[in-house]
Amino acid sequence: MKIEKLTRQVFAPFGDVIEVAGLPLSINQGFADRFDDLCKVDVGETGATKVSLFEVWPRPMPIKIDLMERHPLGSQAFYPLQDEEWLVLVCTDPLKANSYRCFRASGQQGVNYARNIWHFPLLVFAPSRFVVVDRKGEGVNLEEVMLAKPLSIAV
Amino acid sequence: MKIEKLTRQVFAPFGDVIEVAGLPLSINQGFADRFDDLCKVDVGETGATKVSLFEVWPRPMPIKIDLMERHPLGSQAFYPLQDEEWLVLVCTDPLKANSYRCFRASGQQGVNYARNIWHFPLLVFAPSRFVVVDRKGEGVNLEEVMLAKPLSIAV
Repeated sequence: MKIEKLTRQVFAPFGDVIEVAGLPLSINQGFADRFDDLCKVDVGETGATKVSLFEVWPRPMPIKIDLMERHPLGSQAFYPLQDEEWLVLVCTDPLKANSYRCFRASGQQGVNYARNIWHFPLLVFAPSRFVVVDRKGEGVNLEEVMLAKPLSIAV
Repeated sequence: MKIEKLTRQVFAPFGDVIEVAGLPLSINQGFADRFDDLCKVDVGETGATKVSLFEVWPRPMPIKIDLMERHPLGSQAFYPLQDEEWLVLVCTDPLKANSYRCFRASGQQGVNYARNIWHFPLLVFAPSRFVVVDRKGEGVNLEEVMLAKPLSIAV
């Protein structure tokens, strides 16, 4: 699978890239710059927002892609806590291999998957940590599809 | 001012400490641990959640504390993007010097200020980045008090 550079433009069909870009607001008497409101946090009408921390381990290479998941009730944002590249894998139809897109994110890029966007779990090259912003509330907010014919990513 | 170690217990009157603690959920076929729902994101009835990035610069030592701020409409969470210590300064009454508490946070501790908790802007020892989760929406969500007699923090 081709690995593309992650940019806001290419990722727009799937959600937001969370990164420092554009003109910040200067705040705190000039001691801070605020890059404001970088993604659409969608928790629906019935949800609230939660903040979590993930610890993530690398998978063996080549990476076996044997399931995809999505969240029908809200968005899910991930931001890396180390300045190390990681991979973002999404698709429009888990059963169509040609609908998959794989992006290489920098260690200063997070993503926010929009509601209902199919994605693979976090893919990292070394043990990593992420801050996660997603929905809490009632309802089943996870769908998974197992792939009869797994895909493979070699980096 | 005495500088205290930041723990969930000592910070409880002011909000949450966002850190890895307790038993995680094992997810993603064992390739990730989720430390779930680490702070109370409060955006009120009329607000939504936003995610921002801050770039922050250190202030000259000794640090002059000449104003305090609070957010009457919602909580505000900060998580550091480098594993470096930083300081958290809060008070219950900006005009009462003995109501101030200063905490030393590790580089793997964030805080979530509860609604209406008086705090000073981010205090760092080197140029730093933070991810910030707070409220967006209508209404005036900032109160500031200037201190006629500034306080001072020397570290």
